[in-house]
Amino acid sequence: MHSTAFQTVVERLTRDQTPRVWSLLISVFGDLAQDQGARISGSLLRHITEQIGIKPEAMRVAIHRLRKDGWIDSERHGRTSVYFLTKWGRAQSASASPRIYTTEQAAEQAWFVMSNPGQPAQTTDTTGVWISSNVLVTSDLPDISQVFVAPLKAETALPHWMTGKICDLSLIRMSGDFASALRDISPYLDASSTFSTLEITVMRVLLVHSWRRIVLKAPVLPDHIFPESWQGTYCRNTATALLARYPKRSLPELEAAVTTKDLNI
Amino acid sequence: MHSTAFQTVVERLTRDQTPRVWSLLISVFGDLAQDQGARISGSLLRHITEQIGIKPEAMRVAIHRLRKDGWIDSERHGRTSVYFLTKWGRAQSASASPRIYTTEQAAEQAWFVMSNPGQPAQTTDTTGVWISSNVLVTSDLPDISQVFVAPLKAETALPHWMTGKICDLSLIRMSGDFASALRDISPYLDASSTFSTLEITVMRVLLVHSWRRIVLKAPVLPDHIFPESWQGTYCRNTATALLARYPKRSLPELEAAVTTKDLNI
Repeated sequence: MHSTAFQTVVERLTRDQTPRVWSLLISVFGDLAQDQGARISGSLLRHITEQIGIKPEAMRVAIHRLRKDGWIDSERHGRTSVYFLTKWGRAQSASASPRIYTTEQAAEQAWFVMSNPGQPAQTTDTTGVWISSNVLVTSDLPDISQVFVAPLKAETALPHWMTGKICDLSLIRMSGDFASALRDISPYLDASSTFSTLEITVMRVLLVHSWRRIVLKAPVLPDHIFPESWQGTYCRNTATALLARYPKRSLPELEAAVTTKDLNI
Repeated sequence: MHSTAFQTVVERLTRDQTPRVWSLLISVFGDLAQDQGARISGSLLRHITEQIGIKPEAMRVAIHRLRKDGWIDSERHGRTSVYFLTKWGRAQSASASPRIYTTEQAAEQAWFVMSNPGQPAQTTDTTGVWISSNVLVTSDLPDISQVFVAPLKAETALPHWMTGKICDLSLIRMSGDFASALRDISPYLDASSTFSTLEITVMRVLLVHSWRRIVLKAPVLPDHIFPESWQGTYCRNTATALLARYPKRSLPELEAAVTTKDLNI
């Protein structure tokens, strides 16, 4: 039997999204099994996804897709299967992790970069945002000459038409939805609530998954560049504080907890 | 008889231009007779313009034009006429003088101002320069919201396509021509050359006139905003230093010198 607090937390963290199961599983592997040699049993995967309201059939389809796409692989261990990230899957996961788990803003500094309006832009920039065809806002100053560069200080107010280009409305809405979910669950996470090892794991997966969907779509820019309606800073601060408060449990501990549960029920 | 030094100075300061006589006369009145009640005799005007190679007939045409346009007026004094700036002419002259005679750059600070590329510019700016339809470089920060503003510091290199818009090629060429004239006359202005009161006055008029034609066309921006090929800073420093070294003589002193000259010759 789960506590009401846990049920409310799960409900609130899943309400605003129809999680794509394969994407959620990537969050599970990323949080629990990113180390080389780490394996997750089918039982543990089933237990976690069940708690989130995912049907066994939907999970099987997602596992099939992730194997086909090269994210994960599996091995038979006697009567059961274990699953693990492929080398490529681990690399993907490792490259995203710093952005997902950091408590810091994505960049310390940003620059306004303008190239000659009469000429097409000569640079491709993967971290910045193009405000117009010749104006880039970036934290990664391009090494090209003949551009006008101005540092964007935190104390400088940016106009709405500029910050409005930094992230689109759907991403702003996602940050608002996640922020209100985090505010809603806060009362249920007070000192009187105790969560089991498996409950903590499910909660972590949901926090990581919700935040990952937002932060990986956001540009690598300092917080002050974002529009006022962006709640990503609150989301990051709150989600990473909760992840620190409910640390990750080891896989052996989780597998043991699942086995005990299976035997009991 | 004029010294060779004086003749060379006059020749060099007039070589690169066909001075429009009415415009040159505005420089004469501006330098010598800007005060209320100041009057210049026809003899003095004729003497100054003669030295610059202007024919009496051309001077009469110019005087006619300036009277018609409301710049100057005249009075008969016995057998001769005296000329003076009208109230409007004095106001025009007074408003231009600070820019012409200052030893300082036109502005201390400049800003890069960008309005929404999707909307037409909402401001008219008389001191700045439009780099493109929505980008203004100005020393007079517009009091409007929703623009992106970045200070343009002296230590920040600006791209050529931006400084190239600050002043056009003909103005840059004029600054180069005047700068080389100033360099050419420098050896003739050493301690061994002595100039008469009237020679100094002619030299001043030519310096003021050459520099006025340039500085009043240049935008009111700090020196560091101008392109590298701009020689206006050298022109300003050198011309104002010469004006300080050869101070303005009083009109009574000049009129007396002309009378003496007329009687002698």
